[in-house]
Amino acid sequence: MWSDTKLTELLGIKYPIIQGGMAGRIASPERLVAAVSNAGGLGTLGAGYMSPDQIRSTIKYIRTLTDKPFAVNLFAPDSYEVNNEDVARMNNLLRPYYEELGIESQPLPAKFSESFAEQLAVILEENVPIFSFTFGVPAKEHIQQLKNKGIFTIGTATTVKEGMYLEESGIDMIVGQGSEAGGHRGTFMGSYQDGLIGTMALIPQLADAVHIPVIAAGGIMDHRGLIASLALGAAGIQMGTAFLTCAECGAHHLYKQTVLGSAAEDTAITTAFSGKAARGLKNRFMVEMQAHASAILPYPVQNALTKNMRSAAENQNQTEFMSLWAGQGSSLSKTWSVSEFIAELIKNTNEKMGAQ
Amino acid sequence: MWSDTKLTELLGIKYPIIQGGMAGRIASPERLVAAVSNAGGLGTLGAGYMSPDQIRSTIKYIRTLTDKPFAVNLFAPDSYEVNNEDVARMNNLLRPYYEELGIESQPLPAKFSESFAEQLAVILEENVPIFSFTFGVPAKEHIQQLKNKGIFTIGTATTVKEGMYLEESGIDMIVGQGSEAGGHRGTFMGSYQDGLIGTMALIPQLADAVHIPVIAAGGIMDHRGLIASLALGAAGIQMGTAFLTCAECGAHHLYKQTVLGSAAEDTAITTAFSGKAARGLKNRFMVEMQAHASAILPYPVQNALTKNMRSAAENQNQTEFMSLWAGQGSSLSKTWSVSEFIAELIKNTNEKMGAQ
Repeated sequence: MWSDTKLTELLGIKYPIIQGGMAGRIASPERLVAAVSNAGGLGTLGAGYMSPDQIRSTIKYIRTLTDKPFAVNLFAPDSYEVNNEDVARMNNLLRPYYEELGIESQPLPAKFSESFAEQLAVILEENVPIFSFTFGVPAKEHIQQLKNKGIFTIGTATTVKEGMYLEESGIDMIVGQGSEAGGHRGTFMGSYQDGLIGTMALIPQLADAVHIPVIAAGGIMDHRGLIASLALGAAGIQMGTAFLTCAECGAHHLYKQTVLGSAAEDTAITTAFSGKAARGLKNRFMVEMQAHASAILPYPVQNALTKNMRSAAENQNQTEFMSLWAGQGSSLSKTWSVSEFIAELIKNTNEKMGAQ
Repeated sequence: MWSDTKLTELLGIKYPIIQGGMAGRIASPERLVAAVSNAGGLGTLGAGYMSPDQIRSTIKYIRTLTDKPFAVNLFAPDSYEVNNEDVARMNNLLRPYYEELGIESQPLPAKFSESFAEQLAVILEENVPIFSFTFGVPAKEHIQQLKNKGIFTIGTATTVKEGMYLEESGIDMIVGQGSEAGGHRGTFMGSYQDGLIGTMALIPQLADAVHIPVIAAGGIMDHRGLIASLALGAAGIQMGTAFLTCAECGAHHLYKQTVLGSAAEDTAITTAFSGKAARGLKNRFMVEMQAHASAILPYPVQNALTKNMRSAAENQNQTEFMSLWAGQGSSLSKTWSVSEFIAELIKNTNEKMGAQ
């Protein structure tokens, strides 16, 4: 049967369907994670922006909602340089947005991001069955710690070169993130432009180059994308945007509404929100910041400086200043529950590919 | 049987496989066109840069090599503005390349491009069975002339919006050109950036939006891409890069060699060669011209100014100044004949999808 891929066996799930993490874009993420895992897929907690304590309590909460496997996703740590002058320059550019929202400009936080080592420690202690990551590769000792615990590891590659590097690093599986994908680009070798390879081209080349399973991601919204991905050599799929508009997803209601009403040509790549390239629906902040591309600071500094703006925009229902991450398949999104979505996906796939 | 798609019926071909035009990049194009049509696909003469006389003689030549249907592809005409100052500025930027190649800088030609109306007249007179086009939509009277002759029309869309416009214009079929595709972007509404949608996302959204058949293009190199495209809702596929390295293709031997040795992350989009966005393997000219993006003139002016440089580069085996158009699947290209390639593609597809 088509669903008996290596993926379902390896992860202990029913269908070769992974929910992408969507860090920071979902309130009460435990609901979506558990709903996906309960429906036979693999739910993923996008914990990149969470404190170790938040990660621990959310993992515990997920476990009250499902006894199925789930994954936790973190951002592999990255080095960055920043100076006060550049920060002041960006704060000047951001001031009009803060003023328009009627809130104080972002003061420099004590730390720009959570400690990866401390976040990972929780995952090890909690014995999360599957650990996925993006933006790079964890240090050797961290990979060894995960292996020692028997935790299954999934990395993100946007190029064949990155996929080969992940395999060499001992990672168990690779998400091949095509250029269609919504949210942050996982590129960690070269510029993000080098990593904008469409799913149709990326997956077969990646599958040919590595010996571990490849998961297709980017532009996949329904059974057509699932069947196509399996044909391209993927062991399964990862979807983010398709889950975003589901009932159990705690995304802002106007964010969902904007995705539901979007067209294929409405997304673009921006670095303006976080300092890392990400695909989202074009809005005023994205468009206006294009003129200041050279002033945008690296992740996580840019992310920290825009954080209060994004929170205030959500509180004030102002979509023009929210990060509306979405993939290029966004117009195919629907309003339904995770279980309805997955049931329909499986029914249609069975009809096309034949169930046993 | 999977090959009995609407496409094979409509075009009178055996397999739902179209060869993309690749205008100007192939010597003796009649050989490739005839080889593809003889192997059961649809060969396409990329005639955008050809004079009416060249088009007529090549069509006649193709007809001596095959009695199967084939297509001729033209560039839909576009308006452009240019002034002498801008031309002088670009010629200054191009001078070092002309000097390095030891040839005279390009004088301004009497005309920048061939007359579309005169090119089309040949297609009508010669009663070519299938006419395809890119860069826009022909004028209403031209479409009517094609219809009156019973010539089947195929347009190129890079967005859903463009596809709907082509359907409204009375076009018979649409090539959905995903961002992975090599060569010129067909985008004709908005900027080329708006039209960089991956095949995985573009095809299902396009297939849902129009009532005429959609052909998938972009990143498709083998049976995996064919099966995936059919799953996404396409009636067939168009491939360019996969045919480029075939024996019957008259591309420069170093161009072929560079494609054969390329990796998935080696291509980028440039406007530097022709004034229109196109995807090709990165070389010195592409990279160095990035610093002068604002000076690049519109098509067909930029194209005319770089023409002698490109010709000299081919004559001198200097790949750094050739336009090395290739799609993001380029690393999957092989050296074989068209008939071997198509036979292998069909065999593998039959094995996976079941032949009758």
